Amino acid sequence: MGSLASPHLSRRGCGNVALLPSSCWLYYLYNHWMIQAATYFFIFLNLSLAVFEEPAVYPLPFLATSLIEVLCLLVFSVRLMHFAKVTPRNIFWKDTKNICVMVAILMSLTDLAVYGTLRIYNVRSIRWSRIVRPIFLINFAESRQIRRAFRSIRNTFPEITYVFLLFMFSVLMFSLMALKLFGERNLQTAEGLPYFTNYLEIVFDLYVLVTTANSPDVMMPAFDFSWWYALFFITYVIINTYIFMSVFLAVVYNNYRKHLKNEIRKLAYMKRRKMVEAFNLLKEEEGAEFVVREAQWKQLVKLVAPDISNSHRELLLHISDDEQKGFIDKKSFVRLADLLNIQVITLKIRRHPLGQWLPHIYNSAASQFLRGMVRHRGFVWTYDVIILINAVFIALDEESPYISYAEWVFLALYIIEILLKVYTYEPRTFFGKNQFWNWFDTLIIFAALTATILNTTLKSTTEYNSQQILDIVFILRVLRLIRIVDSIQRFRVIMNTLINIVPTMLTFGGLTLVVYYVFAIIGMELFQGKIQFFPANSNAPHALECGNPALKDSMFARAKYCKNNFNNFASSFIVLLELTVVNQWHVFANGFANVTVQPAKLYFIAFHIVMVIIIVNIFVSFILEAFFVEYSVEKSEVETAIEQKIQELGMGIQEEELQDEKLLDNMESAEHDLEGEGGTKPPAKGLVFKIASKPMFFYSPTYMLRCRLVSSIETLSWWLRSCC
Amino acid sequence: MGSLASPHLSRRGCGNVALLPSSCWLYYLYNHWMIQAATYFFIFLNLSLAVFEEPAVYPLPFLATSLIEVLCLLVFSVRLMHFAKVTPRNIFWKDTKNICVMVAILMSLTDLAVYGTLRIYNVRSIRWSRIVRPIFLINFAESRQIRRAFRSIRNTFPEITYVFLLFMFSVLMFSLMALKLFGERNLQTAEGLPYFTNYLEIVFDLYVLVTTANSPDVMMPAFDFSWWYALFFITYVIINTYIFMSVFLAVVYNNYRKHLKNEIRKLAYMKRRKMVEAFNLLKEEEGAEFVVREAQWKQLVKLVAPDISNSHRELLLHISDDEQKGFIDKKSFVRLADLLNIQVITLKIRRHPLGQWLPHIYNSAASQFLRGMVRHRGFVWTYDVIILINAVFIALDEESPYISYAEWVFLALYIIEILLKVYTYEPRTFFGKNQFWNWFDTLIIFAALTATILNTTLKSTTEYNSQQILDIVFILRVLRLIRIVDSIQRFRVIMNTLINIVPTMLTFGGLTLVVYYVFAIIGMELFQGKIQFFPANSNAPHALECGNPALKDSMFARAKYCKNNFNNFASSFIVLLELTVVNQWHVFANGFANVTVQPAKLYFIAFHIVMVIIIVNIFVSFILEAFFVEYSVEKSEVETAIEQKIQELGMGIQEEELQDEKLLDNMESAEHDLEGEGGTKPPAKGLVFKIASKPMFFYSPTYMLRCRLVSSIETLSWWLRSCC
Repeated sequence: MGSLASPHLSRRGCGNVALLPSSCWLYYLYNHWMIQAATYFFIFLNLSLAVFEEPAVYPLPFLATSLIEVLCLLVFSVRLMHFAKVTPRNIFWKDTKNICVMVAILMSLTDLAVYGTLRIYNVRSIRWSRIVRPIFLINFAESRQIRRAFRSIRNTFPEITYVFLLFMFSVLMFSLMALKLFGERNLQTAEGLPYFTNYLEIVFDLYVLVTTANSPDVMMPAFDFSWWYALFFITYVIINTYIFMSVFLAVVYNNYRKHLKNEIRKLAYMKRRKMVEAFNLLKEEEGAEFVVREAQWKQLVKLVAPDISNSHRELLLHISDDEQKGFIDKKSFVRLADLLNIQVITLKIRRHPLGQWLPHIYNSAASQFLRGMVRHRGFVWTYDVIILINAVFIALDEESPYISYAEWVFLALYIIEILLKVYTYEPRTFFGKNQFWNWFDTLIIFAALTATILNTTLKSTTEYNSQQILDIVFILRVLRLIRIVDSIQRFRVIMNTLINIVPTMLTFGGLTLVVYYVFAIIGMELFQGKIQFFPANSNAPHALECGNPALKDSMFARAKYCKNNFNNFASSFIVLLELTVVNQWHVFANGFANVTVQPAKLYFIAFHIVMVIIIVNIFVSFILEAFFVEYSVEKSEVETAIEQKIQELGMGIQEEELQDEKLLDNMESAEHDLEGEGGTKPPAKGLVFKIASKPMFFYSPTYMLRCRLVSSIETLSWWLRSCC
Repeated sequence: MGSLASPHLSRRGCGNVALLPSSCWLYYLYNHWMIQAATYFFIFLNLSLAVFEEPAVYPLPFLATSLIEVLCLLVFSVRLMHFAKVTPRNIFWKDTKNICVMVAILMSLTDLAVYGTLRIYNVRSIRWSRIVRPIFLINFAESRQIRRAFRSIRNTFPEITYVFLLFMFSVLMFSLMALKLFGERNLQTAEGLPYFTNYLEIVFDLYVLVTTANSPDVMMPAFDFSWWYALFFITYVIINTYIFMSVFLAVVYNNYRKHLKNEIRKLAYMKRRKMVEAFNLLKEEEGAEFVVREAQWKQLVKLVAPDISNSHRELLLHISDDEQKGFIDKKSFVRLADLLNIQVITLKIRRHPLGQWLPHIYNSAASQFLRGMVRHRGFVWTYDVIILINAVFIALDEESPYISYAEWVFLALYIIEILLKVYTYEPRTFFGKNQFWNWFDTLIIFAALTATILNTTLKSTTEYNSQQILDIVFILRVLRLIRIVDSIQRFRVIMNTLINIVPTMLTFGGLTLVVYYVFAIIGMELFQGKIQFFPANSNAPHALECGNPALKDSMFARAKYCKNNFNNFASSFIVLLELTVVNQWHVFANGFANVTVQPAKLYFIAFHIVMVIIIVNIFVSFILEAFFVEYSVEKSEVETAIEQKIQELGMGIQEEELQDEKLLDNMESAEHDLEGEGGTKPPAKGLVFKIASKPMFFYSPTYMLRCRLVSSIETLSWWLRSCC
């Protein structure tokens, strides 16, 4: 419910025509992208305070950070009040989201005041309110995706709890068996400690075994004692690691799909209702039925989607007003939201600027030959070979001067390639919005060029080799090699899928950020300063035991993990990342429990449950679903309608041609046809359309756009009639 | 094609009526369960030779093992010839399965002869033909499931290869970057070795990082040097561990589903065709249409499914001959295979034997009270509490005499519980086929009783505490606690799903066996005897380095992994299992590469790719699919038809009643009704039916049964007409 605030809002904004224009203005202001960007800026500013507060990565005085925090809280309060102004009172107060934000603001202020006061009297207390900061990220209206992910987790909760209890029961049972079987054998671990004598330690060890982190080690003493005891651990691993962990994934994935379906259904219903409302506001009588006039429809589309081209709008009109009657009936009107949601790429066939300015030279035989060469398949292959040779050169020793000269040769070759391509293909098309790889190539090459020149200049002038710049040069040099992937069709398909899912992966980035933030703050309070990192040649006492005698002879110190500590926010993040990867997490848990108290292990277990069992599984579910959608290439009804119309108008491109990356070639030849003897099917108006590849994932931000679009359509249709 | 041999077969056996009865007899013999069991016995005998051959767990002379092998190969040849007899020549020779088996037999014999001859002249050679042994397991007609799994893997292959190449490309690129970034920094690992200086070693280290096995360790030197280098590893882990590994799962899962659908479609088509053929053999004219007479139909069902009850058969007849016309039309006849495939449980409402023999005592007030008590929910709760107290007692120290007395008390309590239950509920129903938990309880309790008595007797007579028996007693004691799971409804549902998927998991057991067998044989040839295990107090030279000076200061020796070696078949299996669990596999790889040659690591990488990337992912896919099927409770059309008929006949049980586990109670009360005042809806004939829980997974052995059933229906319908 909470996530659908803007529809509530727009219902008031438009259903009630007696509304004042000032509230109309307030509403635009609230949704203005600059205001939204500013809100996000303050949210991230507030979150980033953890970097500057004690224990700080870059220390700032308490006064500075607290002033910034008060400023942020003030901004949040103003934003919330603004939202209250444009929302009916009862809806505003029913929304838990708003209550949450209010409570969080109050808590933060109180905590800040208490902490500040105590600080004056030199009493050290805990800044506990820092863990509520992610609430602002979650609960402001724009973070729908993260909220949706959290709701999905909440829905999964009951089911996963039962499986988890059963799983824990199994772990406890096996621990009991292990205690009885191995407890009185006087066995020793590889470190010479008693083996499996304490029930709670066995439970912990076997829990760790589920994550496979202590896999053969935990079994070795029993296995050394007798063959047959290996069977105990094999059974345990099969039941708990393989079966139960898969069941967790199954439960999470199943709930994720179910939840997704429900959300989509709700949104589709909401969309239809809003579109009908919009239609009712704009409708005029035409014969027996109500319709929307073409002029009004065009004005509406212009307002709702200002960034689409005129020709695209004409195309949509052609589809909506199929029989060219000059008006749009209800059924077609309602479909508008879907139509707008489909990415139609307008490809303008332009002449090459050089062909316009210097037609003689550009169309000369030599130029034609050159362009033909660049368009040839062999050109791509030649450069693939060059990339491979380059890879060998990169791997070779850097010291030899010949190799550093070779680097210049390669850079020059790549630059020549880009120039040739721009010469051959139309530059604006070459750098079109959807030409990801062209952009990627050009950026990498020019960044490498800049960095290499900078590095050489620095070296020759100051005799000083900047390590940072050199590192960047190295990375850029290697990144250039990625291009070879692009020349193999099957790889390109997989890469495109991966690139397509990046936006939604950012949602998981947000989710991870929230979880990490909370655990990092708690971790810093618990373990701050307990473990210190000293450089390798340090003479500090206990440098080898991470500055803490309690770690003497521990796995933690022996593996040299001292830099993995909770001494500041950045370190904590890296530790949490290592815990997410799971391996060796028991070494961390034991290490930190040794320097504090044994129950500190619970912190690590809790993190494992939240992050690995729930969030990583949701991430995997998401990737699974994304790939399944990608594999099932079904076009929606609306897309088919658009495509049909594109074909009817003779402005389409065959999919096959596109797939062979002959798009640019095709356009070129079309141009040739126009210039020369006149082709067989010259596209009208020098325009072609194509539907953007496969259907976007319906849960991607694109889908969300549809919902927002709908509410703005309604608002704007009302505005068309009343405000203007 | 290969898997559908029996339909081919039956087509000849039945389509061609001119066939001789002797071939009919041969066919029955071929499919006789004892012959099939014998074949399996020889397959496993042949496989198990690896345990007795050098390097042996239990050594047998070469002559003995080779004689057994020749015997097995002889049996396989006879079986194959038998199959050739009952199969048309062209079909037999087209089937790659048969060719495979023949080639395997020839190869094994040749190898055995060569090895034996060389052995006489004391030349040591390799018994390479041992790796073809699993071919017999895969390629004999009965292992359809394993073959299907292998086919599924083969189909996944092209797709997964592309993803794998892209993934390897990414690993190689990152390795190149790592070489450039860290190679010349003179960093050292925790063991003091040079860090990231050799390209191939970097590739291996980063491949290991994908499996997370060396997770923080590989990053620590760079991280200690500078914060920012952690970003390199974080990016690497996100791209390669999280994204690519999920993509592998997605590809495998997607192909698994696609393949499954195709197989099902093929089988369904085959089934229909066979049923129509059977109908054509049995049909008689009745008015305008062809039909099968009721008598013939009954005879057929009796022959095809001899194990179903008369009442069940009547039920099927009611469904097939809906209007009681005395014959079955084509449509209903074709459905027979589906009908037979659905498990209908016939529940007979019987009087308690004591109620028949001693009605006075059994129906007395005291007895009624007792039975009422047992049936009460409180009875279950009481025993749940007893189990919990028992758990505490098990965890407590064994030495105290009071606690060992308590053990007797608990045993007595559990036995009383079972006796009371048998007294209250009808014994044959209590120990019914589907009463898994009742069987489980009773077996565990009586095994524990036997073992405890045996242990006590041994202790009091010989003063000797047998460790094996004590271990078994401990395990049984803990297993008793599982019962508590059964009293919570939600847990029971999850447990039942898990129990349901056990049969299909056995297929994966077979698959794993094949892969392990091949790798174990290769591993033994490569690493046999290179690493030795010595007991903790051994004085042997290099006991701490596993008997090999090359392992001095290695992680392998320090972690005391010496018992993880390839010195015999059983050890190899355990090592492979540890490699499947993945953790620390790089320690194994490095250890075994140190004692042989560096390229030996390829063996471990190959195993990781085959076992973890492919087979474990198929296993996960299978569990995901099984749970999804379990969650989507849709009944098939045929099941609905059966249920309708059961309800019509007034012999159904409400699902809800069943779900509350009131089944037994319900039946009891029905009995009461019959005895007493006459219930509201007494079931006719004292019979009730229910459809066995949810639909079985359509890829489970049950489904396969359907296919076999079909071919036998056809054969038998032909037999009905011609043989008899």
